[in-house]
Amino acid sequence: MPAGSSRMKPSSADVSPREPGRRADARHNRGRILETGRALFAARGLDVPMAAVARHAGVGVATLYRHFPTREALITTVFADQLAACTTVVDDALAEPDPWDGFRLVIEKMCVMNALDRGFSAAFLTAFPDATDFEREHVRAERGFATLVQRAKDTGRLRADFDRSDLSLLLMANNGITAGSTEAAVAASRRLAALLLHSFRADLADRTGPLPPPARLAPSHLPWPPAS
Amino acid sequence: MPAGSSRMKPSSADVSPREPGRRADARHNRGRILETGRALFAARGLDVPMAAVARHAGVGVATLYRHFPTREALITTVFADQLAACTTVVDDALAEPDPWDGFRLVIEKMCVMNALDRGFSAAFLTAFPDATDFEREHVRAERGFATLVQRAKDTGRLRADFDRSDLSLLLMANNGITAGSTEAAVAASRRLAALLLHSFRADLADRTGPLPPPARLAPSHLPWPPAS
Repeated sequence: MPAGSSRMKPSSADVSPREPGRRADARHNRGRILETGRALFAARGLDVPMAAVARHAGVGVATLYRHFPTREALITTVFADQLAACTTVVDDALAEPDPWDGFRLVIEKMCVMNALDRGFSAAFLTAFPDATDFEREHVRAERGFATLVQRAKDTGRLRADFDRSDLSLLLMANNGITAGSTEAAVAASRRLAALLLHSFRADLADRTGPLPPPARLAPSHLPWPPAS
Repeated sequence: MPAGSSRMKPSSADVSPREPGRRADARHNRGRILETGRALFAARGLDVPMAAVARHAGVGVATLYRHFPTREALITTVFADQLAACTTVVDDALAEPDPWDGFRLVIEKMCVMNALDRGFSAAFLTAFPDATDFEREHVRAERGFATLVQRAKDTGRLRADFDRSDLSLLLMANNGITAGSTEAAVAASRRLAALLLHSFRADLADRTGPLPPPARLAPSHLPWPPAS
């Protein structure tokens, strides 16, 4: 069962045709599982055992697997909203008349969104090749950002050696911020975004010289640090 | 018992005068506890329960507490080497003829050391006011860095609005990097350090305008993300 089809309504597998009264229970369980999964992934990372999710949600393991046959199905459903928000940010940025303004907006917005909810970087950085609906949206966001980067380079505002991995680097760096309050985390994210945006400017790159080579930061290497 | 006095040799509390043959055992246990604490802090953060350290080290809780009466005593002993390395980096930087070169070296070296071992940022960012020896060294490193920052500002190379919290921000950002290999983690740390060093340059700050205000990143707010 692909994540996309399970996201909108309880699957027919949840409810036996001979037991229509259990539909509300199934919906309730599904909500509890998603809520629990979201909290556990935030606190302990993406590799929380499915059994732990079931235990914390107060449902049996069989019930969990009936709703989400794989961990990937659960994760992609949990992160569907965050990914949708990412693609919206990229779409809005592509509509900006000046591509550099669009690029700047993506960096600033993603950093702040991620300070408020680590699910954003998880959704953007993690690849789930088997979750087709999720992956389609993911690829759309990635391609949109790549288009924006190329346009910002073409107008001479973004330094030519900006690498795709620099967005991963920035989101990972943002993930590392821990602060005592949401306000402090957002302030720190804003400052980090501003500092890095300065470094990405082509007009300053002329004076700073080349960067060390980009790092290979594959999406699969995302242990997800705990939220602050 | 302050951490510093327990660091160098097994405390006399380890060995009863009537049981001199147990000295080697005590030393062996102490080594196992330190090794285990180091691994657990790296994997799960600084708030690992003492009971978990004892269990993984294969010693009783009473033995653990005989060697390290508090969690703070254990943590500061585990991190003593990293903190000493931090102060050496700062001392070397202060000896550079150009303070900006010294500042740059601190940022670059700390980022790479931290990519290899997360204990460096933990040692530098975490305050342990009750561990007097550790704290004395910690304050020395902090003050040395503050002197370096002031000198680099005075020579007009470091932007005037560089804030003490920007070093915390940089180390936290560095902590967020996760990569599939040590080489990739070091490469990513080098690139992040280079990008941020560009942003810290006073001559470019004239063209970028002011930064968003610094964030309040208190040392006590350091949940320590897992190593890559």
